[in-house]
Amino acid sequence: MFESAELGHAISKQAYARQVTKLREALLDAQYDLFEAGRFPVYILIGGVDGAGRGETINLLNEWMDPRHIRTVAFGDPSDEESERPRLWRFWRSLPPKGKIGIFFGHWYSDPILDRVNRSTRHAQLVQRIEEIVRFERMLSDEGALVLKFWFHLSKKAQKKRLMSLQKDPRTRWRVTDSDWDRYKRYDRFRKVSEFVLRDTSTARAPWIVIEGQDANYRNLTVGNALLAAMRERLDQKPVLRLEDRIPPIPAALDQRDVLSALDLNVSLDRKHYEQLLEQYQGKLNLLARRPRFNKRSLVLVFEGNDAAGKGGAIRRVTQCLDARQYQTVPVAAPTEEERAQPYLWRFWRQVPRHGRISIFDRSWYGRVLVERVERLASEFDWARAYAEINDFEQQLAENGAIIIKFWLAISKEEQHRRFKEREKTAFKRFKITPEDWRNRKKWKEYETAVCDMVDRTSTDIASWTLVEANDKLYARAKVLKTICENLESELRNN
Amino acid sequence: MFESAELGHAISKQAYARQVTKLREALLDAQYDLFEAGRFPVYILIGGVDGAGRGETINLLNEWMDPRHIRTVAFGDPSDEESERPRLWRFWRSLPPKGKIGIFFGHWYSDPILDRVNRSTRHAQLVQRIEEIVRFERMLSDEGALVLKFWFHLSKKAQKKRLMSLQKDPRTRWRVTDSDWDRYKRYDRFRKVSEFVLRDTSTARAPWIVIEGQDANYRNLTVGNALLAAMRERLDQKPVLRLEDRIPPIPAALDQRDVLSALDLNVSLDRKHYEQLLEQYQGKLNLLARRPRFNKRSLVLVFEGNDAAGKGGAIRRVTQCLDARQYQTVPVAAPTEEERAQPYLWRFWRQVPRHGRISIFDRSWYGRVLVERVERLASEFDWARAYAEINDFEQQLAENGAIIIKFWLAISKEEQHRRFKEREKTAFKRFKITPEDWRNRKKWKEYETAVCDMVDRTSTDIASWTLVEANDKLYARAKVLKTICENLESELRNN
Repeated sequence: MFESAELGHAISKQAYARQVTKLREALLDAQYDLFEAGRFPVYILIGGVDGAGRGETINLLNEWMDPRHIRTVAFGDPSDEESERPRLWRFWRSLPPKGKIGIFFGHWYSDPILDRVNRSTRHAQLVQRIEEIVRFERMLSDEGALVLKFWFHLSKKAQKKRLMSLQKDPRTRWRVTDSDWDRYKRYDRFRKVSEFVLRDTSTARAPWIVIEGQDANYRNLTVGNALLAAMRERLDQKPVLRLEDRIPPIPAALDQRDVLSALDLNVSLDRKHYEQLLEQYQGKLNLLARRPRFNKRSLVLVFEGNDAAGKGGAIRRVTQCLDARQYQTVPVAAPTEEERAQPYLWRFWRQVPRHGRISIFDRSWYGRVLVERVERLASEFDWARAYAEINDFEQQLAENGAIIIKFWLAISKEEQHRRFKEREKTAFKRFKITPEDWRNRKKWKEYETAVCDMVDRTSTDIASWTLVEANDKLYARAKVLKTICENLESELRNN
Repeated sequence: MFESAELGHAISKQAYARQVTKLREALLDAQYDLFEAGRFPVYILIGGVDGAGRGETINLLNEWMDPRHIRTVAFGDPSDEESERPRLWRFWRSLPPKGKIGIFFGHWYSDPILDRVNRSTRHAQLVQRIEEIVRFERMLSDEGALVLKFWFHLSKKAQKKRLMSLQKDPRTRWRVTDSDWDRYKRYDRFRKVSEFVLRDTSTARAPWIVIEGQDANYRNLTVGNALLAAMRERLDQKPVLRLEDRIPPIPAALDQRDVLSALDLNVSLDRKHYEQLLEQYQGKLNLLARRPRFNKRSLVLVFEGNDAAGKGGAIRRVTQCLDARQYQTVPVAAPTEEERAQPYLWRFWRQVPRHGRISIFDRSWYGRVLVERVERLASEFDWARAYAEINDFEQQLAENGAIIIKFWLAISKEEQHRRFKEREKTAFKRFKITPEDWRNRKKWKEYETAVCDMVDRTSTDIASWTLVEANDKLYARAKVLKTICENLESELRNN
């Protein structure tokens, strides 16, 4: 991977001066076009060996372009906020929106490589983390992002020379630390590990671009040109005639039997029995959430269901017994403009609870495979890939200690009609019923199919779906509380 | 994943009879359309639990359609031929060509799942094998294949019932073996592992379709319908206007310095010295290839180079000292019709040497990123993804024990001109020079760029490129032999 980056590439001062003015103008133009189009974001990763000029180039890019549209992020050791979230969380939250450029100094590759160089992970673990990254980047590309990965390389000899010369000059001496020399001693191992990682993560859409870091002029011009070419190519993209990208259709059940029709929606609970259960489970939940062991875990509750199925009421029965400082409920409506400028999971990434905390989602990321599928707000390919992306997301949550419990509250079409009518009659409930609700009803069958496909594809042993018979609100609320208590109890016992 | 497949799905005899005739006709139609279009192959994987009817359904599919255009392949324990090749090799060689249907009973998922169920692999190893598969399937999809993965599921209770009833009937008793009951005992573990694998390998383009296996009518109709719908959808695909799929361009070196220009092509060797070296290295190579340790390894030699760079002559100096039973040379020209009906790597998969053997490629899979790129025979996306696919391929070879040595024989443009002219003059060499060779020369610069990109992207520590200065044939041949000897010696010493 490093062949071309050990040839002693260099650009003379004159040649540099000749080219740089034109390049800056063109970059600035491209940046404004990018911003105006607002069609996709640009993520620039700068990695490589110490002393290869990563910092200088990043500064220069900010100088060359309009820094107001660039988000430069550097990552050191994870904060406590970060270490209590999935590994990728710190990156999720620093992605710039469409139309902007993000420059990442230190990025999702840094820790996997260094941990392996220091032998604090095994090769198999490195492979797993790499695959997590490859899937993450594929999702970013599928969401439209332009991902550019630069690797600044120095030969061993060149790195030594560079560190020495930095050290000699009083103005740059501060930049060379003991840990730089420590790392230099492990040059060969670092090279071997990073070669493996670069090879395994160079995909067609997000390839690594390896650049020799020795000569600043060469390095800076190369990065600038590559950035410009990649942005221009994407900005000037023309539509072409191509075969439609179709995915194999999901077969429907031939006998009208599915996980929804298998439910007996008319199970019910009398109020007296309900009050008893409510007291019992709310008390239990309160205690469970205060268990010391929960401080190493977190809880993610997902509520999905038919319109008017009683999600809000069920959620209130849960929150009633929780400390307000411990939980947040996240009502999910149509995405805002800010949210639409990001990958669709972004607005949920922001709400991932830290350890000891609870996030309750009133509707969730499953909108992608429910309303967005049925209403054709997402293309077939986009919602079809979401199943795997959601499973990956939930796995990352689970690996970080989250307990994930997902509810589908199901009511019959008749019961929904009754509730809609009732809402229209009751003044203080009228805000809860809109023409859209009536429109959604017309697609009842399509929603049912989407729900069944969702349950089949995303009910996993790390995050299974609980289908709740909700024609009777009391029964539904009790079942929700009971499920949460049982899950929590078993998770906090085992771990 | 298995929610919908434990509901007791069933289709009555009458309903089945009503639907099956129409389905068969439609399937046969689709099969002929597929064959006539010859645009893509269909791979059908049938997996699942014992007793769920995998075999019956496969037989039925062969009955319903024209078996002459179906290749049904079942896999048992690997043969010795197979176990001395990369894990996926047995599948590589059984893929049907475009226009045909392949049905795989036992497939690339079987061993990873069973090995994990039997605890002969760790979770991290399972993850690695899964990723190998995901990349493999992505490549198949990118090559145009329609990949359909069916999983036949039975609940634990249903599986027991099924095995019992098969055992009771004298006509089917033979089908239930002790190992079926053994596996039944591990039902829960099997379920857990396969759920994980299914979840992790359900991609948008190649999702798993889970089908309840209890009722034969339901199972068969569902598979038939799903197959029909997926084939029809692909066959009836219409071109649509879409944004061109562009990849970030690979930046060229700004200072005209590259791995090729860094070579001193005029190094040479006098004949006397050459004869000495030839004798020395040929003798050594002969001994190395007969070392007992080589019986657990294999050798893959790749020769690429400019036209008339002397690949053939160099190869002959290698083969001269080898036992003809031990090696094969593979001359690579434009793909045949049979080869064009397969993924582009297919014609090389066939030539992977078994242990103790040597394959010498006179041109190779690198044609994809050289001639096919420069002559625009492959789309930008297709050659760009090839770097990663080739690295994956070579890694699979290396994991199976192959020693991979790759040569680029470089001559100058002037030297090539001289050799072309000489060939035209010499009667017995005239067949070696064609108008195409002269045409290729015009794209000298583009080929150079492609070579540099290739070396940068595919020179890895498991399979590095050796650039050979070849203006002097004697020097080139000696360097090739020396490199092979040194590599072999170090590999056979270490391992």
